[in-house]
Amino acid sequence: MSFNLTIALDAMGGDHGIDAVIPGADLALKTMPDLRFLIFGDEGRIRPVLARYPNLRARADVIHTDKAVSNEDKPAVALRTGRQSSMRLAIDAVKQGRADCVVSSGNTGALMAMAKMVLKCLPGIHRPAIASVLPTIARDTVVLDLGANLVCDTEMLTQFAVLGAVYARVVEGIDAPRIGVLNIGTEDMKGGEVLRETASVLSKVKLPGKFIGFVEGDDITKGTADVIVTDGFTGNIALKTAEGVAKMSEFYMRRAFKSSVFAMLGAMLAYRSFKKVKKELDPRYYNGGMFLGLDGICVKSHGGSDHIGFANAIKVAAELAHHGFNDRVAYEIEQLMSQESFFISDLADEESM
Amino acid sequence: MSFNLTIALDAMGGDHGIDAVIPGADLALKTMPDLRFLIFGDEGRIRPVLARYPNLRARADVIHTDKAVSNEDKPAVALRTGRQSSMRLAIDAVKQGRADCVVSSGNTGALMAMAKMVLKCLPGIHRPAIASVLPTIARDTVVLDLGANLVCDTEMLTQFAVLGAVYARVVEGIDAPRIGVLNIGTEDMKGGEVLRETASVLSKVKLPGKFIGFVEGDDITKGTADVIVTDGFTGNIALKTAEGVAKMSEFYMRRAFKSSVFAMLGAMLAYRSFKKVKKELDPRYYNGGMFLGLDGICVKSHGGSDHIGFANAIKVAAELAHHGFNDRVAYEIEQLMSQESFFISDLADEESM
Repeated sequence: MSFNLTIALDAMGGDHGIDAVIPGADLALKTMPDLRFLIFGDEGRIRPVLARYPNLRARADVIHTDKAVSNEDKPAVALRTGRQSSMRLAIDAVKQGRADCVVSSGNTGALMAMAKMVLKCLPGIHRPAIASVLPTIARDTVVLDLGANLVCDTEMLTQFAVLGAVYARVVEGIDAPRIGVLNIGTEDMKGGEVLRETASVLSKVKLPGKFIGFVEGDDITKGTADVIVTDGFTGNIALKTAEGVAKMSEFYMRRAFKSSVFAMLGAMLAYRSFKKVKKELDPRYYNGGMFLGLDGICVKSHGGSDHIGFANAIKVAAELAHHGFNDRVAYEIEQLMSQESFFISDLADEESM
Repeated sequence: MSFNLTIALDAMGGDHGIDAVIPGADLALKTMPDLRFLIFGDEGRIRPVLARYPNLRARADVIHTDKAVSNEDKPAVALRTGRQSSMRLAIDAVKQGRADCVVSSGNTGALMAMAKMVLKCLPGIHRPAIASVLPTIARDTVVLDLGANLVCDTEMLTQFAVLGAVYARVVEGIDAPRIGVLNIGTEDMKGGEVLRETASVLSKVKLPGKFIGFVEGDDITKGTADVIVTDGFTGNIALKTAEGVAKMSEFYMRRAFKSSVFAMLGAMLAYRSFKKVKKELDPRYYNGGMFLGLDGICVKSHGGSDHIGFANAIKVAAELAHHGFNDRVAYEIEQLMSQESFFISDLADEESM
């Protein structure tokens, strides 16, 4: 892929820090050889690791800082005291136009707070959302919000629908993405006031996709929708529940394979096929929490992910930048907000307080 | 098991109706031979099926009604017009003391509305919750609420914690059940006001278990807690998301097994071990949404479940009745509400509106 882009990397975040970031960037270069990198962090620690990756070294600048945001830092503290941190400097690079996007596997709350403060929201957008692509039994689906906003009003959810639909269109190439709103039933009268009003608005306005109504938890993996909209609390619980069930399934499968000589023999015979499934559902290939709605592209890599996961987060950020995601969002949000049928009643505003 | 109990069955609910209920009751009799049944529904359709199960026929009375609640009926309509329905008559049998518990696979909303109206809540309980037992990589966990209450205040969530803990104690025999509150992080400051206040109350009051703080979505399957407390909206989304991911895992596994001759051969060799896993995680063996907090035992069987699932729902109801679950709840709720440290601030009341 010819992605002629510069990616700012926070090298000091996540459980593996430099040891995931540097090999991850090198791995990303293998499929996107035109990328360039600005690597922010402790130069004394970055240089020795970078020396082992000559391809990457030739395409990367290291910008030294000995400050880093820790996982324990509260967002407000990170904002105040982290002005020279690797995370903040990497975001600043996007703001200053020196990089096209930023990737960090650091503290999510701090990253969101800094990204919001430095990059600001796109015109017309009230709040950014965290979005991720998830596997289904059909084509992938993008789910948002996954944790940026505990409580959402109708306007926010409607904007999230547009953000998700633009992603499905410009990055995944789906002409008319199917947009669903997560609820506890598909009937019109299900759920609280905000969800019902959101459905009403989405069914009236012109969208860069097709509103298909309410969807339920099991629709996430059914592939019923290309975009699933929810508040950040519910989305976060659903995402983590899904991760937990996937791990449990794997746990029981492994145990079954070890439970008898026949099963072990069977496992060996089926090894290649299983490896393929494992790759199809491997969370590392779905890694990359996209902070959508900001005037600048910022992707959060899972804190626990290794270099393969980090390379995927780089790919996600590069795709957003390459496809001009933000320009398209700005256009679609302007279209949305100018439609007369898009109105928010007082009731919804009260509900979201 | 010597469960000398009478179970009222709504024979007209669910996708399979009589064809799941009658064979299901017969199957339940095989492990609990002392059960007796009151079967409510269309006698002309029940008798011919029952004739094929002589053991069950000898221990069952059929009470005829040609009225049934449909899945499309709104709860309020079912309440008004369903007084002679099989669902309502089965619940009435518990109220009148003719049955120890009721099992239905009909319309959940209608069943909850009727059960609340007829059976009422146990003294001190504000709202009943729907609870289910879910598999984990360790011992099972009970999760509630799964959909009865979209929005919950601190007092409701605190009571749900007691309901779940009493279940884990008296039915599962866990001495000091670990109680967690579902949230999007484990730190004290995570989540909304109601969750934070619930955690504060649960850490102060004396409980029939041990409060372990906030748990996240992936803790549901980790077995971190024996009881997980959440509002009905979040719980329903989590439960259905979990079902969806389990189905997706199975889908990909099946496809892998069919993808090559080696894989097929491997699958044949590992067949017995896989069957065991499938049984360990089979949703039919976890079937039975318990309506906890009512003054009478009512269990909802999944609408789509077959006779094996229905038999399990009967077992769940029989265990609650046999172990005197409600007497124990009444005692523990009295203990809870009499504790001085159990207070609800005005703030929490506002939040839950």
